[in-house]
Amino acid sequence: MSLKDVASHAGVSIKTVSNVVNDQPHVTPAMRARVQKSIDELGYRPNLTARHLRKGRTGIVALALPELGNPYFAELAAEVVDAAAEHDYTVLLDHTGGRRDQETLVSQGFRSRVIDGLILSPIELEADDLRERAPVPLVLLGEREYDLPYDHISIDNVAAAREAVRHLISRGRRDIAFLGARRGRSQPAHLRLRGWREELDAAGLVADDRLVAATDGWGHADGAAAMARLLDAGHRPDAVFAYNDLIAIGALRVLSERGLRVPEDVAVVGFDDVVEGRFGAVTLTSVSPDKASIARMAVESVLSQLDGAPRQQARRIHAGYTLVHRESTLGHD
Amino acid sequence: MSLKDVASHAGVSIKTVSNVVNDQPHVTPAMRARVQKSIDELGYRPNLTARHLRKGRTGIVALALPELGNPYFAELAAEVVDAAAEHDYTVLLDHTGGRRDQETLVSQGFRSRVIDGLILSPIELEADDLRERAPVPLVLLGEREYDLPYDHISIDNVAAAREAVRHLISRGRRDIAFLGARRGRSQPAHLRLRGWREELDAAGLVADDRLVAATDGWGHADGAAAMARLLDAGHRPDAVFAYNDLIAIGALRVLSERGLRVPEDVAVVGFDDVVEGRFGAVTLTSVSPDKASIARMAVESVLSQLDGAPRQQARRIHAGYTLVHRESTLGHD
Repeated sequence: MSLKDVASHAGVSIKTVSNVVNDQPHVTPAMRARVQKSIDELGYRPNLTARHLRKGRTGIVALALPELGNPYFAELAAEVVDAAAEHDYTVLLDHTGGRRDQETLVSQGFRSRVIDGLILSPIELEADDLRERAPVPLVLLGEREYDLPYDHISIDNVAAAREAVRHLISRGRRDIAFLGARRGRSQPAHLRLRGWREELDAAGLVADDRLVAATDGWGHADGAAAMARLLDAGHRPDAVFAYNDLIAIGALRVLSERGLRVPEDVAVVGFDDVVEGRFGAVTLTSVSPDKASIARMAVESVLSQLDGAPRQQARRIHAGYTLVHRESTLGHD
Repeated sequence: MSLKDVASHAGVSIKTVSNVVNDQPHVTPAMRARVQKSIDELGYRPNLTARHLRKGRTGIVALALPELGNPYFAELAAEVVDAAAEHDYTVLLDHTGGRRDQETLVSQGFRSRVIDGLILSPIELEADDLRERAPVPLVLLGEREYDLPYDHISIDNVAAAREAVRHLISRGRRDIAFLGARRGRSQPAHLRLRGWREELDAAGLVADDRLVAATDGWGHADGAAAMARLLDAGHRPDAVFAYNDLIAIGALRVLSERGLRVPEDVAVVGFDDVVEGRFGAVTLTSVSPDKASIARMAVESVLSQLDGAPRQQARRIHAGYTLVHRESTLGHD
């Protein structure tokens, strides 16, 4: 099955079929419909790789993520793969481990010969690491903020954190801990920690720094260790707002080991809304970022940079989110 | 920093440095050591992309997985990324969704222009779909069995399932359910289901087909639905062996909702040993495949096919596994 078969079936030239398949502008709507009808009837599948190559492209977008083991990033990656597929693009996955050298390497166009664009979720990257403009279209994801000429897509982390804390306050909680501040750094727990502090201030409650527990990483074990440390120090909060769901689930485990009931003794809210939070013995209330929307906007930013004139101004784009209420704050009824 | 700087520092020709960097065979060990010393002292980092391109390679291996949202595959992908990085390779991630058309597409060399090899974990692929030899080195992963001329890496699923069931029997259990048989198919729950049956037979117990619950997929929700169906039908087992951890965790949630205690009333064993199983209110006993070893062997198979003469015989390679005992069979003490 080739362009020739389609051309012969539609009674047009091969060049015309090629123009339709490659979305060339100088094809009349009637001609486009006629060729598309033959394509559909014959079940012709254009050779996408060749199609990209004719445009001087590879058909590949790189997605650079700090952690694959965290289901938030795995779920986001699956959404990016789907969003890219809608544009006949495939995704090259880069695993930076959240290390500055790896993040710098990918942002500076490592492998730019084989990719058309890059979607990067940085952890340690500093603005200085991006002094030179990346050699391919670049989009940034995540909570880390930069004053850089690249589109940046994230949810409004401060507003989302405030909504989570407001929900805990509305359930009568006063001593609300924050689990997952980054040890020795302001970023990237920065914005969520700021939201925690702002909402407590706004409610006239005390943002007690002894209830802020730092962690080295963002996994279950980090959350369990931080929760145990708080309790061992004699600081027993009546609620926990965790940087992410894995930290929250680690904390739930420790609360259960210590015989504390959730939410009666300690209410818990996470962040990310990963599937696993819906199936614990206590289901987890969590901020749910619109991952599909983040993925779609990231892919579309790369493709519009490829197709269009360079923009004067990079955009700061906020995706939507919702706070999903579950048993860890509402109880079992 | 360039080859020239290294050559000047080592007092040799640029060609010699290039031969060392590109692993050419006709370099004496003494010369190799001398150049390597300069490379180390200068901190020279060869341009890996260019290095691959000189060999007519892209430096990219594709990894095609059915589900990124399942942490088993995410954890395996992270291991493959690390194993590939040790050979200066990066990983292009393909998300097949476990669909036969997608799996056929990737196996038949979709994007073979940009990849040097393919690691594929198939679900629906039939042997007929691979009649023609793939255009790049191909390695198969997972439980699905084929009589095909490709290396295939997996754990011994029958032996692992038998060990899981034997452990349940040793804890005094007799009515052991299997959760996660594939609806309307023998594969791929086939081998684990066979292990369940063989071990019950060997112990002189009844492999009761009413205790085999089929699922459409392999997620938490599938496990929860299957467990609820068994209980609603009046079949209350005293143990559950689940196809994977997500199904097991979904079942744990339903057991908790129904007021059944784990393991006192129902003991549970999963498969995959994903991190989340270690942090529930009841930690999960699980078969733990050696994911790092599976990843390493897969990458090495691709690279040896690239470097060496074609092998006469494809290999069936078994990676190691352990059964990790936790609270869902041992209790809380």
